[in-house]
Amino acid sequence: MTHQLTRSHSQESKVNENRARMLISCPDRAGIVAAVSQFLFEHHANIVQSDQYTMDPEGGMFFMRIEFDMDQLNERLPALKEHFAAIAASFEMKWQISCVSEKKRLAIFVSKEDHCLLELLWQWQAGDLDAEIAMVVSNHEDMREYVESFDIPYHYIPVTHDTKAEATKQQLELVNGSADVIILARYMQIIAPAFIEQYQNRIINIHHSFLPAFVGGKPYHQAFERGVKLIGATAHYVTEELDGGPIIEQDVGRVTHRADVNELKRIGRTIERVVLARAVHWHVEDRILVHQNKTVVFN
Amino acid sequence: MTHQLTRSHSQESKVNENRARMLISCPDRAGIVAAVSQFLFEHHANIVQSDQYTMDPEGGMFFMRIEFDMDQLNERLPALKEHFAAIAASFEMKWQISCVSEKKRLAIFVSKEDHCLLELLWQWQAGDLDAEIAMVVSNHEDMREYVESFDIPYHYIPVTHDTKAEATKQQLELVNGSADVIILARYMQIIAPAFIEQYQNRIINIHHSFLPAFVGGKPYHQAFERGVKLIGATAHYVTEELDGGPIIEQDVGRVTHRADVNELKRIGRTIERVVLARAVHWHVEDRILVHQNKTVVFN
Amino acid sequence: MTHQLTRSHSQESKVNENRARMLISCPDRAGIVAAVSQFLFEHHANIVQSDQYTMDPEGGMFFMRIEFDMDQLNERLPALKEHFAAIAASFEMKWQISCVSEKKRLAIFVSKEDHCLLELLWQWQAGDLDAEIAMVVSNHEDMREYVESFDIPYHYIPVTHDTKAEATKQQLELVNGSADVIILARYMQIIAPAFIEQYQNRIINIHHSFLPAFVGGKPYHQAFERGVKLIGATAHYVTEELDGGPIIEQDVGRVTHRADVNELKRIGRTIERVVLARAVHWHVEDRILVHQNKTVVFN
Amino acid sequence: MTHQLTRSHSQESKVNENRARMLISCPDRAGIVAAVSQFLFEHHANIVQSDQYTMDPEGGMFFMRIEFDMDQLNERLPALKEHFAAIAASFEMKWQISCVSEKKRLAIFVSKEDHCLLELLWQWQAGDLDAEIAMVVSNHEDMREYVESFDIPYHYIPVTHDTKAEATKQQLELVNGSADVIILARYMQIIAPAFIEQYQNRIINIHHSFLPAFVGGKPYHQAFERGVKLIGATAHYVTEELDGGPIIEQDVGRVTHRADVNELKRIGRTIERVVLARAVHWHVEDRILVHQNKTVVFN
Repeated sequence: MTHQLTRSHSQESKVNENRARMLISCPDRAGIVAAVSQFLFEHHANIVQSDQYTMDPEGGMFFMRIEFDMDQLNERLPALKEHFAAIAASFEMKWQISCVSEKKRLAIFVSKEDHCLLELLWQWQAGDLDAEIAMVVSNHEDMREYVESFDIPYHYIPVTHDTKAEATKQQLELVNGSADVIILARYMQIIAPAFIEQYQNRIINIHHSFLPAFVGGKPYHQAFERGVKLIGATAHYVTEELDGGPIIEQDVGRVTHRADVNELKRIGRTIERVVLARAVHWHVEDRILVHQNKTVVFN
Repeated sequence: MTHQLTRSHSQESKVNENRARMLISCPDRAGIVAAVSQFLFEHHANIVQSDQYTMDPEGGMFFMRIEFDMDQLNERLPALKEHFAAIAASFEMKWQISCVSEKKRLAIFVSKEDHCLLELLWQWQAGDLDAEIAMVVSNHEDMREYVESFDIPYHYIPVTHDTKAEATKQQLELVNGSADVIILARYMQIIAPAFIEQYQNRIINIHHSFLPAFVGGKPYHQAFERGVKLIGATAHYVTEELDGGPIIEQDVGRVTHRADVNELKRIGRTIERVVLARAVHWHVEDRILVHQNKTVVFN
Repeated sequence: MTHQLTRSHSQESKVNENRARMLISCPDRAGIVAAVSQFLFEHHANIVQSDQYTMDPEGGMFFMRIEFDMDQLNERLPALKEHFAAIAASFEMKWQISCVSEKKRLAIFVSKEDHCLLELLWQWQAGDLDAEIAMVVSNHEDMREYVESFDIPYHYIPVTHDTKAEATKQQLELVNGSADVIILARYMQIIAPAFIEQYQNRIINIHHSFLPAFVGGKPYHQAFERGVKLIGATAHYVTEELDGGPIIEQDVGRVTHRADVNELKRIGRTIERVVLARAVHWHVEDRILVHQNKTVVFN
Repeated sequence: MTHQLTRSHSQESKVNENRARMLISCPDRAGIVAAVSQFLFEHHANIVQSDQYTMDPEGGMFFMRIEFDMDQLNERLPALKEHFAAIAASFEMKWQISCVSEKKRLAIFVSKEDHCLLELLWQWQAGDLDAEIAMVVSNHEDMREYVESFDIPYHYIPVTHDTKAEATKQQLELVNGSADVIILARYMQIIAPAFIEQYQNRIINIHHSFLPAFVGGKPYHQAFERGVKLIGATAHYVTEELDGGPIIEQDVGRVTHRADVNELKRIGRTIERVVLARAVHWHVEDRILVHQNKTVVFN
């Protein structure tokens, strides 16, 4: 059965086939904006949004995100990229140009807690999440029927101490070539270093605390013990350091002495899903640049 | 006596004598960014921050704010402006370029409620408000001694029904040529149309409600009557329509059924001063553009 | 097909069969708390939570909510109520005592926008909403399959100008005796006065603005036009005055000049569902008392 | 010179000479509320506010705060306390009853950062802080003139490595018998264990981070390094564990990648002063109970 909560087509139709996004990071120096905007102008591209940030005018890094429209984008993009490469080289840029109409493909990893997965599915079916959901991967079978009702493939890969290496291999085979970004939507297993290396700055985790407070397991228990007056959630890119990767977004909610651990979890669930959804949004819209374990978010 | 809470000089020293800000608004079309950034590059200006916003890629308005550094800015600024005028004309731009080191001069109008004035004085003496306070104008004498202790001129202009026209005349004489922006820091008198016309988009008022809820008098009483669960404050530019001008900033705070009107006022005071201070900040740093009764805030 | 997202049974099991809630409102005078707590003590009830609020110590109203545990609650409740009636009469109390284990039955009314309904279904299936969902009523067929997958009855009652009276009659027949509270989860039809009268202070609506700003239709368009910097949502009890009933809960989210009406709607959807869910929570847990078009919320 | 920002006398006059506050904590068991409220009723006291919290209905702790009015409170309080002692003993209560009209006396400790001190002085002079400011103690002379302009004694006690013991002795001599609570308003010296012991749960510190994140020195630098998206402040009672005492209040503010350390400090200052002011408010109104390194706040 295909689920009745089908993707809103009226929303999809508004995607502009001729819109592209450009991301640039390079050492700052005079003339970057002039060179890039002159290049786009000469290629008849119309800048519709532009953000930039200079870490330090003297010797710092420069970051830029441009959205532009260009007629016949698809046909002309290869040449555009080729021409831009020369400019990029002269400024030592790391850069990318992507078509807005080529949606990023998500692989969502989930364990038993379903609220973050459900939030992403909802936003997606409502037309609010500009991405494709390529698959859901889980170490439990619980969510299969629900996920498949949306015509989304569901892969059950159990993980035990002994099968961990095998599971990682299976996961990588599934996502390689099929997913551009991995979302750990309360996936309670450690991701193997080999996996992290392959998806650098493309694995988003939601940690259920206001990092760096309460790193590691059972953060709501830790928060309860410490008696904090706000609880939080943190979306971050996964690095080899547990809960130590670049922070994308955080938010908090107020709690009182009345809240026991279960109530903290209940309040926290809404914070977690809102924070994760925002981070995924920004990622799929190419709004995030990473530099030295920190993020620049042009939102 | 000069007050001991003197302006922090360590903070002041960090002002960059060679930094300028450029504000542009014009009908959108291709090539604006390229033209402006090319112009700045050719004049050896280094862009350190740039924000832009296009209302609608097809036929909308384009807004831009650029901060740039340029050697010998003061000597070269007149020529820079002259050269830019040609570009500006070709794009039908409204524009301004100003030196960061030329601080805006504030005239703060206040009645009996002193918290908003005190907040601005604090932020100023802490070096957090990048402006000069040219004068305080009040229809009461209450704050004279305190204000004068900072070596800031204090002008007492009483306002009664009969003296209203005369008071407006006096006020205009005081501020003309001496103040770039008027801050109504809980000044409880209506500003005359003649005054508003002369200081268009340069009079900032703090209204003690979340506009457009509770326009007019006694908003906390209105909020109490309605039983709202959040109270707010709104900083806006003053137009002839009461509490109807372009909104610059708003914020809210949570209240419960326990709060009577006095408690709403107490909670509200902190919201008011924070909201007004943010709006003044953004104004003096040229972060606000006004278009059709709405603001574009590049913060 | 029964949906796989079945209600969490581990959560349900924690319900205390011996817990009751007492709500009292009466004119304030000395001795109320003493009389009530002495009464409960003599009936071997253990108070586990108690909240009270006095509007004005001199001649104001007194409001109280008590949660208590009592062995064999079900058998003893009728006698308890009978005995309490005498005390209640002497203090002119409006009061109620209810068993926590007797969950309130919700009828959720929805039109085409599904996010508020989905939020309630989620919270319910996650075991976070302590209520039964007796039915979903809609003037559209869109959500039937999804709702029925939870084994929840779905009633399609189209509403046109001509059938309005008939539709109201049908709705009342459905809910009478089957639903304790009506949730208007973005139900875009006016509720008939006869309906409102029958469910006084038991119909909860979510309005997609920070009331009293933007009463009536298209509040996000109104908010866009006014250029507000925060958008909000308001959950309130429905009265005959449009969007004028007692406010239960409100919240806001920050927006910038970049947000067009669609973006306001997108941001607003999350605020709406969070605010409505909180209000429904508080209602089903008997945390809300209404007095003179305002709410006392013991949360 | 006595400062012109004199304490608002209209505000003071509203203090009720006959209002008292009672704080109770004891092991939970049936009958506590009945016994206490019956006692107050028999002594012709009218309860105007009451809050209670039971940690765990089975074997947990019980906490209660009652505000009541009683004619001729001052004359009758000694007898009231004497009579209550018997009830208290039978329930193993820790308890206190205090007159609202007997304001708590604050000793505010400050170093060079003045914003928290200034906030407290402002709230106090505006009549918003229901306390007396007995003295300001500082290891710098900077704020003397300003503080003395309010007729508040200013004590300069320099602290060096060698004079630390002597300084503590001097501080204790100053506050003993003269101050009920110590406010560390960005006082950058470690408080000696002897001092802490004497003022247990009566020393309030403001830490400029969202604890337990960024314990210790330079929290804004730590926050900048970690790239957090929210910065916070925490008011807590001081214990011997650095930044480890019971948390009273916390709040946060949003920051972006654009904010350098100075900007974090600037944004943080407003959070710090708001959070500290709230904590001091609650303390002087007897709204805080401490149990096992956590606070119960009846606000």
